[in-house]
Amino acid sequence: MKTNIEPAEGKLGILIPGLGAVATTLIAGVEAVKKGISQPIGSLTQMSSIRLGKRTENRYPKIKDFVPLASLEDIVFGGWDVYDDNVYQAASNAKVLDQHLLDAVKGPLEAIVPMKAAFDHNYVKNLTGTHIKEFTTRHDLAQQVMNDIEAFKAANGCSRIVMVWCGSTEIYFEESEIHQTVESFEQALKDNDERIAPSMIYAYAALKLGVAFANGAPNLTVDIPALVELSKITNTPIAGKDFKTGQTLMKTILAPGLTARALGVKGWFSTNILGNRDGWVLDDPDNFKTKEVSKLSVLEEIFQPEINPELYGDLYHKVRINYYPPRGDNKESWDNVDIFGWLGYEMQIKINFLCRDSILAAPIVLDLALFMDLAKRANMSGIQEWLSFYLKSPQTAPGLKPEHDIFKQLIKLQNTLRHMMGEDLITHLGLDYYQDLVESM
Amino acid sequence: MKTNIEPAEGKLGILIPGLGAVATTLIAGVEAVKKGISQPIGSLTQMSSIRLGKRTENRYPKIKDFVPLASLEDIVFGGWDVYDDNVYQAASNAKVLDQHLLDAVKGPLEAIVPMKAAFDHNYVKNLTGTHIKEFTTRHDLAQQVMNDIEAFKAANGCSRIVMVWCGSTEIYFEESEIHQTVESFEQALKDNDERIAPSMIYAYAALKLGVAFANGAPNLTVDIPALVELSKITNTPIAGKDFKTGQTLMKTILAPGLTARALGVKGWFSTNILGNRDGWVLDDPDNFKTKEVSKLSVLEEIFQPEINPELYGDLYHKVRINYYPPRGDNKESWDNVDIFGWLGYEMQIKINFLCRDSILAAPIVLDLALFMDLAKRANMSGIQEWLSFYLKSPQTAPGLKPEHDIFKQLIKLQNTLRHMMGEDLITHLGLDYYQDLVESM
Amino acid sequence: MKTNIEPAEGKLGILIPGLGAVATTLIAGVEAVKKGISQPIGSLTQMSSIRLGKRTENRYPKIKDFVPLASLEDIVFGGWDVYDDNVYQAASNAKVLDQHLLDAVKGPLEAIVPMKAAFDHNYVKNLTGTHIKEFTTRHDLAQQVMNDIEAFKAANGCSRIVMVWCGSTEIYFEESEIHQTVESFEQALKDNDERIAPSMIYAYAALKLGVAFANGAPNLTVDIPALVELSKITNTPIAGKDFKTGQTLMKTILAPGLTARALGVKGWFSTNILGNRDGWVLDDPDNFKTKEVSKLSVLEEIFQPEINPELYGDLYHKVRINYYPPRGDNKESWDNVDIFGWLGYEMQIKINFLCRDSILAAPIVLDLALFMDLAKRANMSGIQEWLSFYLKSPQTAPGLKPEHDIFKQLIKLQNTLRHMMGEDLITHLGLDYYQDLVESM
Amino acid sequence: MKTNIEPAEGKLGILIPGLGAVATTLIAGVEAVKKGISQPIGSLTQMSSIRLGKRTENRYPKIKDFVPLASLEDIVFGGWDVYDDNVYQAASNAKVLDQHLLDAVKGPLEAIVPMKAAFDHNYVKNLTGTHIKEFTTRHDLAQQVMNDIEAFKAANGCSRIVMVWCGSTEIYFEESEIHQTVESFEQALKDNDERIAPSMIYAYAALKLGVAFANGAPNLTVDIPALVELSKITNTPIAGKDFKTGQTLMKTILAPGLTARALGVKGWFSTNILGNRDGWVLDDPDNFKTKEVSKLSVLEEIFQPEINPELYGDLYHKVRINYYPPRGDNKESWDNVDIFGWLGYEMQIKINFLCRDSILAAPIVLDLALFMDLAKRANMSGIQEWLSFYLKSPQTAPGLKPEHDIFKQLIKLQNTLRHMMGEDLITHLGLDYYQDLVESM
Repeated sequence: MKTNIEPAEGKLGILIPGLGAVATTLIAGVEAVKKGISQPIGSLTQMSSIRLGKRTENRYPKIKDFVPLASLEDIVFGGWDVYDDNVYQAASNAKVLDQHLLDAVKGPLEAIVPMKAAFDHNYVKNLTGTHIKEFTTRHDLAQQVMNDIEAFKAANGCSRIVMVWCGSTEIYFEESEIHQTVESFEQALKDNDERIAPSMIYAYAALKLGVAFANGAPNLTVDIPALVELSKITNTPIAGKDFKTGQTLMKTILAPGLTARALGVKGWFSTNILGNRDGWVLDDPDNFKTKEVSKLSVLEEIFQPEINPELYGDLYHKVRINYYPPRGDNKESWDNVDIFGWLGYEMQIKINFLCRDSILAAPIVLDLALFMDLAKRANMSGIQEWLSFYLKSPQTAPGLKPEHDIFKQLIKLQNTLRHMMGEDLITHLGLDYYQDLVESM
Repeated sequence: MKTNIEPAEGKLGILIPGLGAVATTLIAGVEAVKKGISQPIGSLTQMSSIRLGKRTENRYPKIKDFVPLASLEDIVFGGWDVYDDNVYQAASNAKVLDQHLLDAVKGPLEAIVPMKAAFDHNYVKNLTGTHIKEFTTRHDLAQQVMNDIEAFKAANGCSRIVMVWCGSTEIYFEESEIHQTVESFEQALKDNDERIAPSMIYAYAALKLGVAFANGAPNLTVDIPALVELSKITNTPIAGKDFKTGQTLMKTILAPGLTARALGVKGWFSTNILGNRDGWVLDDPDNFKTKEVSKLSVLEEIFQPEINPELYGDLYHKVRINYYPPRGDNKESWDNVDIFGWLGYEMQIKINFLCRDSILAAPIVLDLALFMDLAKRANMSGIQEWLSFYLKSPQTAPGLKPEHDIFKQLIKLQNTLRHMMGEDLITHLGLDYYQDLVESM
Repeated sequence: MKTNIEPAEGKLGILIPGLGAVATTLIAGVEAVKKGISQPIGSLTQMSSIRLGKRTENRYPKIKDFVPLASLEDIVFGGWDVYDDNVYQAASNAKVLDQHLLDAVKGPLEAIVPMKAAFDHNYVKNLTGTHIKEFTTRHDLAQQVMNDIEAFKAANGCSRIVMVWCGSTEIYFEESEIHQTVESFEQALKDNDERIAPSMIYAYAALKLGVAFANGAPNLTVDIPALVELSKITNTPIAGKDFKTGQTLMKTILAPGLTARALGVKGWFSTNILGNRDGWVLDDPDNFKTKEVSKLSVLEEIFQPEINPELYGDLYHKVRINYYPPRGDNKESWDNVDIFGWLGYEMQIKINFLCRDSILAAPIVLDLALFMDLAKRANMSGIQEWLSFYLKSPQTAPGLKPEHDIFKQLIKLQNTLRHMMGEDLITHLGLDYYQDLVESM
Repeated sequence: MKTNIEPAEGKLGILIPGLGAVATTLIAGVEAVKKGISQPIGSLTQMSSIRLGKRTENRYPKIKDFVPLASLEDIVFGGWDVYDDNVYQAASNAKVLDQHLLDAVKGPLEAIVPMKAAFDHNYVKNLTGTHIKEFTTRHDLAQQVMNDIEAFKAANGCSRIVMVWCGSTEIYFEESEIHQTVESFEQALKDNDERIAPSMIYAYAALKLGVAFANGAPNLTVDIPALVELSKITNTPIAGKDFKTGQTLMKTILAPGLTARALGVKGWFSTNILGNRDGWVLDDPDNFKTKEVSKLSVLEEIFQPEINPELYGDLYHKVRINYYPPRGDNKESWDNVDIFGWLGYEMQIKINFLCRDSILAAPIVLDLALFMDLAKRANMSGIQEWLSFYLKSPQTAPGLKPEHDIFKQLIKLQNTLRHMMGEDLITHLGLDYYQDLVESM
């Protein structure tokens, strides 16, 4: 039975806190795709097909032809940053995309100028912003962000807005009593409590206005009871946290494969080199801690050592990120996995991924924005667990462990889309193909 | 609704054509496990759990406690080989397992002496067998194998028998008219037609006696219409072909991950070094061809270039195996995958797998034997597509493409078990956890 | 005592059979360097310093400031090819250099148009040339090449000419009686004997005119007694064979390091992927054989298994090249080295080289041309063993094994230059620094 | 002209502070070699040949047959440790060697019981010794060590003693005024100055008794003016510091190869996993600092950025060690080298070394001990720069930069041996082979 979904009419504003490498790669890419000079590879909403019905029916529509998504032509980008470079300048500095490509879409990129950021240096010590909102209390700051959103919506004639956090990783901290309810959170805003991180200001502002919010960094941000509560009150979808790219993407592909085959794992050593602004922020131990917690969490849920102690009970897992300027945005990762099989005999798997951080992240931002907008129109509020597929550290209902296995995440996403559109869910059972095998031959 | 399954009473004979590295590693391992000095890592039937019901129910029984399988204590091993070494000698020569482990189970291993093999040197030019059945026609040869099976069953007091081919890869050839029907096949046996490969003799003999047959090599063997037909007539399960270990295992883990994320693939280069008897057999181009076809097939089905031409339409896939004696059974593989993402930007994934061929294969033989026996008792005859999980080149119903994605294969296997036992199939939808989120907080 | 060397006055013509990826990368690069927009990295003659005297003297002049070499400004390029593309077109097709760089030097590149090639399809089956000299006998063909050389020299006002073979690898064959003396060789030319390969025609033509000849491919070419004899008669330097780049370069760096430390080697597996024209030519087994022999030879001389049987007596060495179009000229190699140390304990070294074939080869062509010209002016004729440094399979005096250790080759090269210029040879003894240590403190 | 060398008569005592993984691997190995069940691979003194004279002379004696070294039969081992395990127990705990091998030499290993160590917990925070000398002042402590040496010599009937430091890496600190002269050092001993590290106590005790001392860790130890002065006064050889194994060994093999070819280097990222006691000690940042300084130093001297600024002026070099218990002593390293060639085009070299720390170090200890003993008998006192070959951070004369290029180090070592024995030094010039080439044919 098909869900009732409002059509994707009018313009969709995508507002991004943090117009750095990821965001500018996204924006330049969408412009290039609109100009017909490039393709949105890596984006499920634009490139992927989905199987419907039985295998013999051969129905594989594109996802964008199956569910009612905003079209690229209807997207308007905007955002905030701690530097005042326009998107063309910022993209040129990021050195992710070829300058010739950037020059081909220079006009629309130059037109996007960041709004002043809500920022607190204590949360990102390796950044010194120069394009920053002044404020008395955090409550005032949140109000300024709300004003920004409304002004942007009006100026650009948008019918809907979504927000995706693409800013740097904030320092590590744990939730406290002020993060428990909407009431305590709003009081803390008024008290200008320093335990409210800048990213929470953006999230709060968005949710108050019913603007869907997704978090691409490992900061808590919307992953606190107060903001989950607010998202239900204002009937707004939320998702987080930390875009799943590079090494963790590979890990959540490989680990399910090992556990599928009941192969044991003794150790998993992961290291990275990274020379972009993100690498520089993560060179600070407090910020790395936030990222490390996010990166370390994935294996435990996939391997379930409490259920499989003989296989995963002694796993030693280590993750390192090394700031290494010669490579810029071209992150490289090495994984060494010490596994054991039949009778305990040891084997090793080594993965070397020459990846590109922002190239992998940009289509995730696009998909999250389009799917969050879909969820809003389908009246799905609160945590969107079906978007775990895109996230290193997915937010889930209290009492549920996050699902990290990318293949279960994908089935969840696809079956959610099928469910929304009234198609049969797929179980891969398929015994029926074999019932009358001899007769049919 | 639960399927009617006969209980696993009495002894189960596992008969193996080819008592080489894989088979002896399996047999020695089962003995070591029975002695309590080792663990059957890598075997789903022995080690894995299966989730039942909703996540919040926390039901994760071991598979062996969920479905009625033969116990390791009830297994009796036997087989055929072209050399007359007993299993202790053959295992020592194979140098897969530590000699101290083999010595600890020397008694039972020495007791297993191979029967003379049905062999044809033209099918494996790099092997020169010395322990071989004489025969007039292939029909006579098949009769000898049937006699062996019945004699083994009687001598060991087995209530049931399954057969798993662990012999070398035969040379490449394609099916012809004699392989189309039971009638034409039996006529060809009588005509001693050279197009009937030795492995087909074993398969025919097994199926005539209602003995389930699984094929661990890439040879056609049971993957011909005549033997599929016979399996239905005698109500016998069949499965094939080619144990999925090492590099292809990794490939069917990684490729679904790439296509999940709509990442394009331009090239995939796979190479191996291998110094065991298998490596030596595959050094002959005719035998390598059989293996190459099996290894090359997996990507096309996973990537579906006909549906995703922008992503996989130009994929160049190359697979090489290099005989390299210094490593013996400790196979090593390298994969280089040239992928592209957002706007076509290129990245590379390199996987280096220091694996152990027989260590990965042995538990597959065990699982296939136990699950084939289960299928027989559950009255499931013909092709067992749900066991594709273990196979590089799965046999499927006519008109269906084989499923190579290991994660879909796993869901198929698990949902088949759930279906057999009357449990709910799992779809990973899970929207219900989020219906009353605010209320429950 | 300093050698008498004629000054490098006037223009030096560098004539190249085979204006493909390597040659065009060289020519475009020299033009870019002359324009001041790039640097000749990888060229010893242009970039390297040489230590003179004792360490405490601190004398490290650039090689080009130490010995009298032709300057880049005085070089004129020309050559032959089986296609008629000018150097700009050929360089664009080769896709080694960025198109923007090529466009910056388009003028001089377009001006260089290949002369028709001396070619025989039987020697390179995967190439079908269209820009080829017609001829009656090979003697006639050699005369045409000599005419080309003289015409080029006159037209460009060159005072000196050197020739460097940059053509494809010819098929494997061994020398026969016609290759033994100048007399038998010249008779074979007149008889149009098919055992005279095209590359030998070029070499013969050069040597007859006293033009120094270096061979960058693994073909025999000048490595036959007849042409060595001719080089002495006409007082001409020769050098060969096979530019040492990529994997073999790494091998002759690493192997001396292992033997330095008395580490044993059990196996060395080398594989490559390569998608350029060279890769396509080597996809033919007859041409690969020539390259394989060249690549396999290096380890034996470095490890000297006859002297060190416990360490290197059982070495298994395997080299593979795989044609893989997705990478073009961006060759990639993998080496796996199985070593053993103290008490025979095993270790592994794995090297993955993401290299660029023509980028590594181009400066070698430049250096060989300039040093061969220097040798000619220094009156050094015949085999130039001191240039072994640049070659995979160095030509040596009869009775001498080629030296493959790149560090001994470098010392040989440097001490030859020191010797030519009357500087002390360096032995790295250095005991004198420690004679009066206490007194000096 | 041959140096006057005293013969190697009588027993040689090798005394080792730190009877851990390296020392016990050495001692067990020498016993196994003496029993004829193993070979001293990796030891130049035992396994390597040396070329003498011209290539055509074919003279390649073993080093041990060329220079008068102590024989393995004449060696007696002893040492100190902070734990009281005998060598059999310590070797078993270290898990470097197979237990079956250790059991075969259990008798002699059990007989070696460590003397109580001179230890200061502040210098190695991650170790808590239990078998430690009590002392009033460091002067008293040094006297105790001298007494140990003399007692050992007498008890074992040794004619000569050498000492090699195999203890853990001490924390980082820089030399101060007390380390400048013998006088100030001895005063500081009496003052029990905490700036005198335990390793210096051993070195001082050895040198006072004329016992040659080599330092296998990166601590300062003998690399201070006071102890260099003392070594000259007592006519004693010294060498240090830090055994060159694993990653740094590879680095000093590869880097000379790159600079040989004038290839530029932009970045060099080195990381390690290591799970032995050494890894645990280096998990403390103060101790890692000492090691890091030693490991970082090698590239600068080899690349000489001051002479080659275009090639090496911007090199970013990073070294990491990660404590990773699953691997124990089986260290693994990854190096990523970002190089550039012709016109600045970038390439990458990746080295993955599955090494074994103690297996690589043990033969170095043996060689250093035997060569130091040789130097003593050849009357060579003070710094032995010709042994730089074995050391990560070689000690040199004031004003000289250490030589890190392993190939120059090897020539230095070999030419020193040739010089001692009155053989011609080798320069690899070899022009004479080519003088009469035509005539000789």
